[in-house]
Amino acid sequence: MNYPNGIRKEKKKDSIINSWSHKNRGLSLEGEINDSNEYYRNIDKAYIYKKPTPIKITKVDYPTRASTVIKEAFFTIPSTTDYNGLYRGKYIDFEAKETKSKTSFSLSNIHSHQIKHLQNIENHQGISFLIVRFSTLDETYLLQTKYLTEFLTKEEKKSIPISYFRENGFLLKNEYQPRIDYLKVVDQIIGGI
Amino acid sequence: MNYPNGIRKEKKKDSIINSWSHKNRGLSLEGEINDSNEYYRNIDKAYIYKKPTPIKITKVDYPTRASTVIKEAFFTIPSTTDYNGLYRGKYIDFEAKETKSKTSFSLSNIHSHQIKHLQNIENHQGISFLIVRFSTLDETYLLQTKYLTEFLTKEEKKSIPISYFRENGFLLKNEYQPRIDYLKVVDQIIGGI
Repeated sequence: MNYPNGIRKEKKKDSIINSWSHKNRGLSLEGEINDSNEYYRNIDKAYIYKKPTPIKITKVDYPTRASTVIKEAFFTIPSTTDYNGLYRGKYIDFEAKETKSKTSFSLSNIHSHQIKHLQNIENHQGISFLIVRFSTLDETYLLQTKYLTEFLTKEEKKSIPISYFRENGFLLKNEYQPRIDYLKVVDQIIGGI
Repeated sequence: MNYPNGIRKEKKKDSIINSWSHKNRGLSLEGEINDSNEYYRNIDKAYIYKKPTPIKITKVDYPTRASTVIKEAFFTIPSTTDYNGLYRGKYIDFEAKETKSKTSFSLSNIHSHQIKHLQNIENHQGISFLIVRFSTLDETYLLQTKYLTEFLTKEEKKSIPISYFRENGFLLKNEYQPRIDYLKVVDQIIGGI
């Protein structure tokens, strides 16, 4: 099991701090997506949320009914993806990941059941995709599940080269508001359905 | 803040134990819905999941990278509802609650922002509703958001009488598989859109 691990949580911690104290600079991908989703909600455009981190609670203290404290819990493997919601009457579902690699995105970053989940969504007329940021290069791509599936079907490789994202994905540029306007791409995907 | 509280968590614990050890009898509403959703997924009918319980983590121990333990965390107020997913290309979103009352369902059981969320979903062509079980009477109703909104607009009351559910909701009977076939009602709702 390669999840949870220290690195992932460190990143998470940073991203929480970032999204709170540096609202407009140096956000992590997660922070930028959360901000963008908040913006979309504020203008009544879309209702897409990040799911809470799944944990298994093993010890709880109830000193009073109002002050319950979880004293022991463990991170568990998520059943689905991090983000889902509603836009233009469509069910939207995606996973977002960052990599420091300049050349490829390792598939070890996504659980196989998460890939299966993205495929199930696509098969049932939902819109599902990955958002992958190559942070060293500052390039962020939206890759539809159908291209992920195509890669997995054709290739034996355990990582997707950046060239595959450049050819088959949509480049997501950083903007001011929303920080990362991925629904512009979703509009194109819906147009093409 | 009336959440979290001891009662709710006790119920949660029971429901987890129930859904694990008493697969086919005496399930809580939550356990029955989880079982039904699992059944729907197994037959590739719908992909609807319960969201993880939202918590705020304040202390984490990293003895090794593989054995991270959360040492302190708190329950936080959920931003949305407990369940969402995809069925027949539609975005589905709902909250499920049990009450011991024989006469009414207290609106203190749902946060006002959860009601707003259900309304946002309905306004954006999603399908949203409440599932409420009057456990003492063993009656379970699905109430569409439009009727919840109608009640809130017309009435000053802080609880919805059971007669309102009987008149405007759909009665959900207990079945064998799935335990609670609420998608049968969703079919009627979709048919009526």
